[in-house]
Amino acid sequence: MDKRRRKFWGWGVEEADLTPEEQKRWVKRMESQFDLSGLELTPPPKLEEIELPQPRITPPDTLSDLCSSAPYDRAGHTYGKGFPDVVRAYERDFSVAPDLVAFPGTEQDIVNLLDWCSSAGVAAIPYGGGSSVVKGTEPDVGEGFKGTLSIDMKNIDKVLEIDETSRAAHMQAGIYGPALEGALKPHGLTLRHFPQSFEFSTLGGWIATRSGGHYATLYTHIDEFVESLRVITPSGTVGTLRLPGSGAGPSPDRFFIGSEGAMGIITSAWMRVQDRPTFRANAALTFPDFLVASEAVRAVSQAGLYPANIRILDAGEAYFNGVAEGDEAVMVLGFESADHPLDAWVSRALECCRDHGGTLEGEGGDSKTESRHRQGMAGAWRDSFIRMPYVWEALVAMGMITETFETAITWERFPEFHETVIGEMTEVMEEVCGGGFISCRFTYAYPDGPVPYYSITAPGKKGSQLEMGGEIKKAISELFLRLGGTITHHHGVGRYHHEWYKKQRPDGFGKVLEEAKRVLDPAGIMNPGVLIDPQR
Amino acid sequence: MDKRRRKFWGWGVEEADLTPEEQKRWVKRMESQFDLSGLELTPPPKLEEIELPQPRITPPDTLSDLCSSAPYDRAGHTYGKGFPDVVRAYERDFSVAPDLVAFPGTEQDIVNLLDWCSSAGVAAIPYGGGSSVVKGTEPDVGEGFKGTLSIDMKNIDKVLEIDETSRAAHMQAGIYGPALEGALKPHGLTLRHFPQSFEFSTLGGWIATRSGGHYATLYTHIDEFVESLRVITPSGTVGTLRLPGSGAGPSPDRFFIGSEGAMGIITSAWMRVQDRPTFRANAALTFPDFLVASEAVRAVSQAGLYPANIRILDAGEAYFNGVAEGDEAVMVLGFESADHPLDAWVSRALECCRDHGGTLEGEGGDSKTESRHRQGMAGAWRDSFIRMPYVWEALVAMGMITETFETAITWERFPEFHETVIGEMTEVMEEVCGGGFISCRFTYAYPDGPVPYYSITAPGKKGSQLEMGGEIKKAISELFLRLGGTITHHHGVGRYHHEWYKKQRPDGFGKVLEEAKRVLDPAGIMNPGVLIDPQR
Repeated sequence: MDKRRRKFWGWGVEEADLTPEEQKRWVKRMESQFDLSGLELTPPPKLEEIELPQPRITPPDTLSDLCSSAPYDRAGHTYGKGFPDVVRAYERDFSVAPDLVAFPGTEQDIVNLLDWCSSAGVAAIPYGGGSSVVKGTEPDVGEGFKGTLSIDMKNIDKVLEIDETSRAAHMQAGIYGPALEGALKPHGLTLRHFPQSFEFSTLGGWIATRSGGHYATLYTHIDEFVESLRVITPSGTVGTLRLPGSGAGPSPDRFFIGSEGAMGIITSAWMRVQDRPTFRANAALTFPDFLVASEAVRAVSQAGLYPANIRILDAGEAYFNGVAEGDEAVMVLGFESADHPLDAWVSRALECCRDHGGTLEGEGGDSKTESRHRQGMAGAWRDSFIRMPYVWEALVAMGMITETFETAITWERFPEFHETVIGEMTEVMEEVCGGGFISCRFTYAYPDGPVPYYSITAPGKKGSQLEMGGEIKKAISELFLRLGGTITHHHGVGRYHHEWYKKQRPDGFGKVLEEAKRVLDPAGIMNPGVLIDPQR
Repeated sequence: MDKRRRKFWGWGVEEADLTPEEQKRWVKRMESQFDLSGLELTPPPKLEEIELPQPRITPPDTLSDLCSSAPYDRAGHTYGKGFPDVVRAYERDFSVAPDLVAFPGTEQDIVNLLDWCSSAGVAAIPYGGGSSVVKGTEPDVGEGFKGTLSIDMKNIDKVLEIDETSRAAHMQAGIYGPALEGALKPHGLTLRHFPQSFEFSTLGGWIATRSGGHYATLYTHIDEFVESLRVITPSGTVGTLRLPGSGAGPSPDRFFIGSEGAMGIITSAWMRVQDRPTFRANAALTFPDFLVASEAVRAVSQAGLYPANIRILDAGEAYFNGVAEGDEAVMVLGFESADHPLDAWVSRALECCRDHGGTLEGEGGDSKTESRHRQGMAGAWRDSFIRMPYVWEALVAMGMITETFETAITWERFPEFHETVIGEMTEVMEEVCGGGFISCRFTYAYPDGPVPYYSITAPGKKGSQLEMGGEIKKAISELFLRLGGTITHHHGVGRYHHEWYKKQRPDGFGKVLEEAKRVLDPAGIMNPGVLIDPQR
């Protein structure tokens, strides 16, 4: 386990923050890109600078050992890692801090904590790694509660059983990505689910939010890997049967996957795991433009080849990430297998790409594509992808507006969707910020449509970043819904997308969720305001 | 559309029933297998022989054109196609016939019918093709209703839109399998979902019951093909957004998939379709025994090759279906693609099978396996599979007990599970019937476990078949649950598995379903007794 201390105000650990040289480089880049001058980074907040409200609640004696009101714990459990989170942290505003943070060690601890919350009218906020970018763990629960308790699952993190025959593992929900993979590795196994937050997020968080791993086709969401799960709700524990498949009524697993802590706390799951890949074939290609590249992605996605990776970056995204010169779109293509060489797979995929205007990077032919994934454009992309959360915080500290928005849309609507989003958002940034930059990549691709992921960066103004960012967020959310996209493909709903989620969700299903919550959580204390309007 | 008249008492159309010669062959076979003599087939019921109770309800004038009380309609909508259904039909017992059968032509018709049912206290039973083998459409709804209305969806059967770019089709729920494929074929597309009931079952029925197509890996259940759906519930219409993927809260689609008409009637769906396969590679192999063959299935299932078909039949099943001599297990293996030749796929799969004790049928090497699927063992299996429902009715008419039970279980538990099921059920049949025959095949295989499908045939006694069959059904259901299997993988729950489904389902999720039903169906009229105990 990583012993470095987590930052209480943003992504990751202090030790990994940008060096002063890196900061200077990004300042220059922003200044030159948006014709600015004198950009300076606000220093990150220190604990002694921030003012936390007095805790409004005291745990009963029987629970006091599990609970902390230490400022580091309360400040660290206030925000997720999204744009408005980091802005407020840099503004030294921690007014929505939880009153207390609990660290249960057993399922019985959770039962006791939820019993107390139900009887005392305290909102209970399940907390995994806190990597939400949608205000999923923020104790901003409205007026109906006596206080707020953030329940951090990090001590409920054991690997309970590994079944090499069926390739499945029973693990507790609080386990972090690296520990989970570390436990599977000696058995030659992997969950093979690597969200960008992997290092600082947990299994339970992935399941509760329908996380997307970084594999681009076939097994994208965590949903597919869940064999069974246990959820502690205020009215009892729900445990589903461990099965490779079932058709006995609507899937109980699918009901709790994506429930975002609104029904209860996921405590453990049997997960489908895989043999660790030993064969790899990777390639990078360039395309004259993004829409041409998207047709190649469609062709490969509909061919039944199931690449592990088929990302495309538009020219701006490729340039921004140091992958290419900014005049062409880039594709990163990869196959993996624990079982067989991949020549037939990759050569057919490359054929599809060439048929759709792609050019293979370098002089390498199909047979030279092995183990390329840490080199060239693919390698540059990989490095940038891992480093990005730190860069991104530095941009916020400079006063920029910088955020990502992801959706999904069917192929036949994609070209118009994309053109409209780029066009209208460019106008919106012009109005709100006097300029700005929007780029796009595909993070996943299905036979019936892609997952476009938009990144925007625009010059903001310190003190007004929240408001400016809010206008941009509102504009793109309305656009996604107007054009038939989803408000989120893999970031979750939280409190940030709630308003638009309610419009997207069929009313009848909204009522089902409300009634389900009423029976599983009669006091309405579970993560209030997420998925469902607060019920008290 | 097939113009032959459907049998009101069993599977399919009269014209396809066994010929007298076939009947004789099966009589001899049963007599010799179970040392019986003088077996005779009860003739199928005639309409004039059966006594239907007087209809207890009259539709309002505005709905009378949609409703029929004709004996053929009422008798034909009394039963599904399971063992107790056919037994009762041959016993001329149609006492649970619906009072009326409605044939709506539009969504508004359905709204009006459900409004009437809600206000008049009439149970509404959605009816697709009536191929349920789990009493899913039987109007046996308990005492709380003024009458029963079977709602036949066959006139709501249009293909509304075909999107070749995204490979999706918007179709109404009442469309039958052949018509659905017929509409997609000119576009070079296929839904590629072929349950054994394909000819006489509907899209809506498949979705409502989580049907399994006959493809054995990857896309097994209909669930995976649903892009969006519309459901008319008594309290309003629920329409989900058409998306290739989403992570916005628990999936509303997954909540209605498998809801078996208990929440409302599925009226249309956007379905993911595929290009029609042009490449095929098939092979048949033999194995010294079933457990050895199961290890080969596991190896292929965990290799990431995704065959379209990887069925194994135990020696008894292979013999019973005329596929082999009865001293070895048989595997039918097939790959399909619309995009690429399958040499790499099939040769690696055959390697896995040979490594696990398999012998390829005939002298053919890997390159000779193309287009074999209508020949040899695979062809024999295919022919038998399609003919089986007719054979099976003849066995019931002879007085046999013959039924199938399917489940799913993880690989590490399978050998003991299987041995116990075979052992205990052989004893149970001995006790109940003085003998009997149980065989097994895999109908689907997942990386983490197979779907074992058990067929039993035992000598029954006319007049006591229901009771004898009931004892056997109870015994195997208890066994499945005791050993950790599911009560159903792809036949649905209906009224037949209800008792065991309630034990398998987590209580908390049962409460969720009950509350969901209360809000979507306040009068409790939708298919009462399916999934949830009748709420009135």
